[in-house]
Amino acid sequence: MMNELLKETIHLAILEDIGHGDITSLLIVPREKKAKANIIAKQDFILAGMPFVKEVFNAIDPGIEMQIYFDEGAHVKKGDIIAMISGRARSLLAGERISLNILQRISGIATMTNQFVKKVEGLSVRIADTRKTIPGMRIMEKYGVGVGGGINHRFGLYDGILIKDNHIKIAGGVKKAVMLAKKGHHLLKIETEVKSLDELREALDAGADVIMLDNMSIPDMKKAVKIAKGKAILEASGNVNLENIRGIAETGVDIISIGALTHSARAVDISMKFV
Amino acid sequence: MMNELLKETIHLAILEDIGHGDITSLLIVPREKKAKANIIAKQDFILAGMPFVKEVFNAIDPGIEMQIYFDEGAHVKKGDIIAMISGRARSLLAGERISLNILQRISGIATMTNQFVKKVEGLSVRIADTRKTIPGMRIMEKYGVGVGGGINHRFGLYDGILIKDNHIKIAGGVKKAVMLAKKGHHLLKIETEVKSLDELREALDAGADVIMLDNMSIPDMKKAVKIAKGKAILEASGNVNLENIRGIAETGVDIISIGALTHSARAVDISMKFV
Amino acid sequence: MMNELLKETIHLAILEDIGHGDITSLLIVPREKKAKANIIAKQDFILAGMPFVKEVFNAIDPGIEMQIYFDEGAHVKKGDIIAMISGRARSLLAGERISLNILQRISGIATMTNQFVKKVEGLSVRIADTRKTIPGMRIMEKYGVGVGGGINHRFGLYDGILIKDNHIKIAGGVKKAVMLAKKGHHLLKIETEVKSLDELREALDAGADVIMLDNMSIPDMKKAVKIAKGKAILEASGNVNLENIRGIAETGVDIISIGALTHSARAVDISMKFV
Amino acid sequence: MMNELLKETIHLAILEDIGHGDITSLLIVPREKKAKANIIAKQDFILAGMPFVKEVFNAIDPGIEMQIYFDEGAHVKKGDIIAMISGRARSLLAGERISLNILQRISGIATMTNQFVKKVEGLSVRIADTRKTIPGMRIMEKYGVGVGGGINHRFGLYDGILIKDNHIKIAGGVKKAVMLAKKGHHLLKIETEVKSLDELREALDAGADVIMLDNMSIPDMKKAVKIAKGKAILEASGNVNLENIRGIAETGVDIISIGALTHSARAVDISMKFV
Amino acid sequence: MMNELLKETIHLAILEDIGHGDITSLLIVPREKKAKANIIAKQDFILAGMPFVKEVFNAIDPGIEMQIYFDEGAHVKKGDIIAMISGRARSLLAGERISLNILQRISGIATMTNQFVKKVEGLSVRIADTRKTIPGMRIMEKYGVGVGGGINHRFGLYDGILIKDNHIKIAGGVKKAVMLAKKGHHLLKIETEVKSLDELREALDAGADVIMLDNMSIPDMKKAVKIAKGKAILEASGNVNLENIRGIAETGVDIISIGALTHSARAVDISMKFV
Amino acid sequence: MMNELLKETIHLAILEDIGHGDITSLLIVPREKKAKANIIAKQDFILAGMPFVKEVFNAIDPGIEMQIYFDEGAHVKKGDIIAMISGRARSLLAGERISLNILQRISGIATMTNQFVKKVEGLSVRIADTRKTIPGMRIMEKYGVGVGGGINHRFGLYDGILIKDNHIKIAGGVKKAVMLAKKGHHLLKIETEVKSLDELREALDAGADVIMLDNMSIPDMKKAVKIAKGKAILEASGNVNLENIRGIAETGVDIISIGALTHSARAVDISMKFV
Repeated sequence: MMNELLKETIHLAILEDIGHGDITSLLIVPREKKAKANIIAKQDFILAGMPFVKEVFNAIDPGIEMQIYFDEGAHVKKGDIIAMISGRARSLLAGERISLNILQRISGIATMTNQFVKKVEGLSVRIADTRKTIPGMRIMEKYGVGVGGGINHRFGLYDGILIKDNHIKIAGGVKKAVMLAKKGHHLLKIETEVKSLDELREALDAGADVIMLDNMSIPDMKKAVKIAKGKAILEASGNVNLENIRGIAETGVDIISIGALTHSARAVDISMKFV
Repeated sequence: MMNELLKETIHLAILEDIGHGDITSLLIVPREKKAKANIIAKQDFILAGMPFVKEVFNAIDPGIEMQIYFDEGAHVKKGDIIAMISGRARSLLAGERISLNILQRISGIATMTNQFVKKVEGLSVRIADTRKTIPGMRIMEKYGVGVGGGINHRFGLYDGILIKDNHIKIAGGVKKAVMLAKKGHHLLKIETEVKSLDELREALDAGADVIMLDNMSIPDMKKAVKIAKGKAILEASGNVNLENIRGIAETGVDIISIGALTHSARAVDISMKFV
Repeated sequence: MMNELLKETIHLAILEDIGHGDITSLLIVPREKKAKANIIAKQDFILAGMPFVKEVFNAIDPGIEMQIYFDEGAHVKKGDIIAMISGRARSLLAGERISLNILQRISGIATMTNQFVKKVEGLSVRIADTRKTIPGMRIMEKYGVGVGGGINHRFGLYDGILIKDNHIKIAGGVKKAVMLAKKGHHLLKIETEVKSLDELREALDAGADVIMLDNMSIPDMKKAVKIAKGKAILEASGNVNLENIRGIAETGVDIISIGALTHSARAVDISMKFV
Repeated sequence: MMNELLKETIHLAILEDIGHGDITSLLIVPREKKAKANIIAKQDFILAGMPFVKEVFNAIDPGIEMQIYFDEGAHVKKGDIIAMISGRARSLLAGERISLNILQRISGIATMTNQFVKKVEGLSVRIADTRKTIPGMRIMEKYGVGVGGGINHRFGLYDGILIKDNHIKIAGGVKKAVMLAKKGHHLLKIETEVKSLDELREALDAGADVIMLDNMSIPDMKKAVKIAKGKAILEASGNVNLENIRGIAETGVDIISIGALTHSARAVDISMKFV
Repeated sequence: MMNELLKETIHLAILEDIGHGDITSLLIVPREKKAKANIIAKQDFILAGMPFVKEVFNAIDPGIEMQIYFDEGAHVKKGDIIAMISGRARSLLAGERISLNILQRISGIATMTNQFVKKVEGLSVRIADTRKTIPGMRIMEKYGVGVGGGINHRFGLYDGILIKDNHIKIAGGVKKAVMLAKKGHHLLKIETEVKSLDELREALDAGADVIMLDNMSIPDMKKAVKIAKGKAILEASGNVNLENIRGIAETGVDIISIGALTHSARAVDISMKFV
Repeated sequence: MMNELLKETIHLAILEDIGHGDITSLLIVPREKKAKANIIAKQDFILAGMPFVKEVFNAIDPGIEMQIYFDEGAHVKKGDIIAMISGRARSLLAGERISLNILQRISGIATMTNQFVKKVEGLSVRIADTRKTIPGMRIMEKYGVGVGGGINHRFGLYDGILIKDNHIKIAGGVKKAVMLAKKGHHLLKIETEVKSLDELREALDAGADVIMLDNMSIPDMKKAVKIAKGKAILEASGNVNLENIRGIAETGVDIISIGALTHSARAVDISMKFV
């Protein structure tokens, strides 16, 4: 699960929080003092991010050991002991906050994603994330979406073609933009935003593989599905929330992408207590 | 405003989002095409983070120019044009998402902070942040708290002594912990958590400079203020929200620290449109 | 054109070649001595890589100026002056070898790619590269393929799904592997290797978007085209050379991918002379 | 064998190829699936680079184990199993291409070097490399030259004094250049390029330790040997190939340096197969 | 004891000293040759820095083992064997100089600090360091001060407020400067420099927590103590040496800070010998 | 003068000292306040290091301007204004300490080197440094030695062959060690330590280019000069100080290397004052 990008995120997190050292522990905790601590759920949520917690402690002190009692994606309940960590007390304290910050956020994302996923149960539509993530946290955050039952849209500007309003303006229309992309790339799907059914037809004509219906009304989305079904993957996007998602899903679109999964997820409550 | 830590955050943000290149723009946007784009508020909020936006575009393309129409901390209204950016279209598109992700989050934090600050208007209490920030984003997030009218608690484990429950357990009591810290450090204030009025008295006896009343009831906080006023700075902490903050503030504590300012702030809505 | 990955490549190139300093120049060249140098073609080739040369000199000394007399992709002739560089003599000497090493290799790749491209003139087939590049040089090398008239296959393991023999073995067959991939990802094309017409049919059944005909004979490729044309993109791969490429292209495959474009390209001959 | 420079090369190679993750394996290969794979020679060649392969896999997953069946420098034959690697299947797949790219190139360099070395068998002349290496790969490539029986010329601008045409032009002649260098440095040998027998005599007069005969004719090289033997080390350089090397060697020069060892070596063919 | 900052220091130290490799050992020491070496004191001193030595060898070769015979802070005597290191001879030689350079300097700092500490024995004054450290070495050097019996002043500009002459000039006086700081920060002590008893009174009025008496005469320091005792911590600073420190200490100041502890410490003599 | 290694040193120095920001200036100095400051000599010394000071300020704020009134190597007097720096006051304050720490140390090294150089005036012997430098500072420190009139010995383990006691022990004698080195490398001089005249003769027999007389008595050094003059460069090393250096120099050795130039140099006194 580790890669060089994740290593940089964890390096930066530790550099930022520990800096030249944890002065409180230095003053109070004897150097070789050993301890055990439990990671405890203080509310119900979907667990996601323990592999990153492991890497944080491993980067701080390879001597730390961890026993994890729940699988990723498990529905933990308030009061559950998620994991037990043991080793040098100073190392446990040094990694506590970074670990909780990650775990609280990634579990928060998984939990929120799961709420959306449940709203569309029984339908074939998939819930997807966006690039509206916190800088430096994209891999972790998109992982959280996956654990919650969603799928990942492109990771960055480098691994998916997505023609947006600003591109369309430069190219001089949806059709021209899609055709430029198709001519230039053969091995990636071409996705384009459209704002109207007319633009949708242009996109289909030009051979777009995926069409994002940007902020369309539900009646228009229904028409879009009629027009495009079987010819392109349809993605609904824009102002999706727990109230309106079922209606959007029932239009028959294939994917609903939701920026809020990452940009507005709230941390769940988790603590670490020495035992 | 830039420092080596911020440079690492921005490096990582760009590496993560742009990777080997923005393939959509490469296909659709001519290499030397120039463009102008507006950054537009899509809701009301407190603006915070434009200096970071500037650094992001500067790292991507030093030829980008930016005119900023609002000061940090300004109350922007839905529809306001916050700034105008001009330069190579590919560079504008490359920096768009990273910039908005930062600006939406930091403004979200400033906006939420400001809501808390307004609730305590007229009182001398100060609203402070915590270390419950997103890994790699601490400098930016704490800056957002400041713009919103809050104050910054310690940045990391390295620049403030804060004795928490786990330290107290290891030391064998509040008093012992505070005394160990006082003996070891002379130039930093000593802060300790306490969970009861008895612990508060121990902390005062031991000479703590700042005492955090952890999840105390309002009646107990009032008693704490009576006991400690003038002897130590009192900080209220734990489960503070917009409903209960006024009551907490009126107990007379000096500082109220609120993890939610950073761990649960929601992104505000901002977009970038080519003109 | 610069991104954080390219910056790391150029950082490493300079660190490796210049180390603690260019001792010969330090001994012989006065500190403020200015000079001009020409970059000169010593054979005919397709020019590719001057933007990277610019970045190398810019990283060494932002005061260096460069006039470039040919566009990327130009057919330069033996004796042509490609560019004129001026500035501090020490800086010119410090960047000379790194620049030429890059320019010679990337132009070599563009030149070799162009030889393949010319062999298939008049046909709609496209020549593609592979991941058989030199570690750290992928962006530059794939750029060279593009300048030479080829197209880029996926950049890394992260931006394209390509099911190869080892995956097929683990999944228990082409069909199972393709279906696993299709179920898990919706926004990327699914490409799979096949070694026989039977596997080709399996891949089509499972809905592969792109099928790589691995080391197939020309008669088999013809049959494959008959079977799959219009249902999937066909890519020929394996032991392609300048002698056999026309025959492969005439089978009607859509893409021919050639590892030799990068793994066996030879540097072209270029020098830098002070004037 | 590892040092901080090599770690940076391997970091960059992994960052570039794996990015945010190997998506094909993620979809098809179960997380804990174990596998074994053989690294197999698909042609005859001189093996070089296995220590780097080990480091690549170690950086990706310290749990990978490797059994290597041949020593560095061994003449492996088409079909030979070079090594067996075992561990998590995802890790094997993640490291496959990077490892092969390195091993194919470094073995290619060792193999080509060895062809030159064999051509001069029985003579005391040594075959040396140059700085015409691929950016970021110098340590690995120069190691490959050594395994093939060659010697390493200076690694970079920092560890050897080599006065070239551009320095001579600035200094105002070979003699002046060599004398400047001798006056400034006492612990490194002074090497200078010369283009004629007159320049050779100047270099000797000035006390050069090593003299590079740049693109000299064979009769001139013979004269140079007569003039300089015993007074300086003579290095032949320029347009050396397998056809003319014996003739050059027989002039009696001490060293023949050959850019083609690195700038034009071709990758040898090696594959990795799961067993 | 390791953190990301220390890792960067050690990375840089190794990069700088070993570069592309230890060529002498490569030529003379067989690759797998094992060896043992003693680290030996060649003068009397206070030992400090062995934990960093451990990290250096661990970064170079995790197979190196070390037995350390003295605690940090021990008074070692000329001839004492401080530690025994064993493992691959090449690794021992590669780490020798870096390790000794660190150990000699940090022990030198501890030793010098201890000389100052002894001079004030029996008094309650504490000896503190400054930011006058060697770039990149601050954590190690301040650690050395601690081992020698001193205390650490702030680590950097980020973890302590210290108002100096240039700030006072900008603010328009000591009082204004202290008040600006007090208004802006609540959780750090405010320290200010003063040059006279008048400035001292201003600082006290404004509520400074710590006051640095900058280059004051001993009689003035005595008056300062009378004025300020119990109201602020007093720190003497400027031109402190082993001759005058006792006199300064006896004025009753709380802290004496001494730049020379780090900027003018001399390396102690230590060697490493193979056994 | 800048290279990638120096950039890393300066990055680390800034990261270490400024961390998340200069909090004192943030509180007291208005953001856009401009200022001028003089760098002032507070004692007599040889100036060295201003180019690094320039790079430090340039890394912190490219808007800073600097006028330098003395050349490197100048003998500045107490009270001299060395340079005037102007720009944003916050940037001046942020770079002050790092700059002075560098300038004080490098000038201290140049000054001490110059004292040794003056002691041997009139003789042809050269004063050289060693690898006994502070980790991360080697380039700067060796530069300081050069400014003071000394010469640089090898920079690291990678750019010079120096056979020391531990190598001799492994090889089984001086002669064997030198011969191994000579056989393996042709373009670097071979230097070896010797402890006796017998070892000296062995080294000469084996063809060593440079011979270090390790801690030899003056009479033995005289004999060594007689034996070896004209056959090898002789370097005296070990316990050289200002008292004994003239005597050592008069033995006729070519080079005297002195660890104290770097490991025991004391910082000179320099300050920065706002004007």
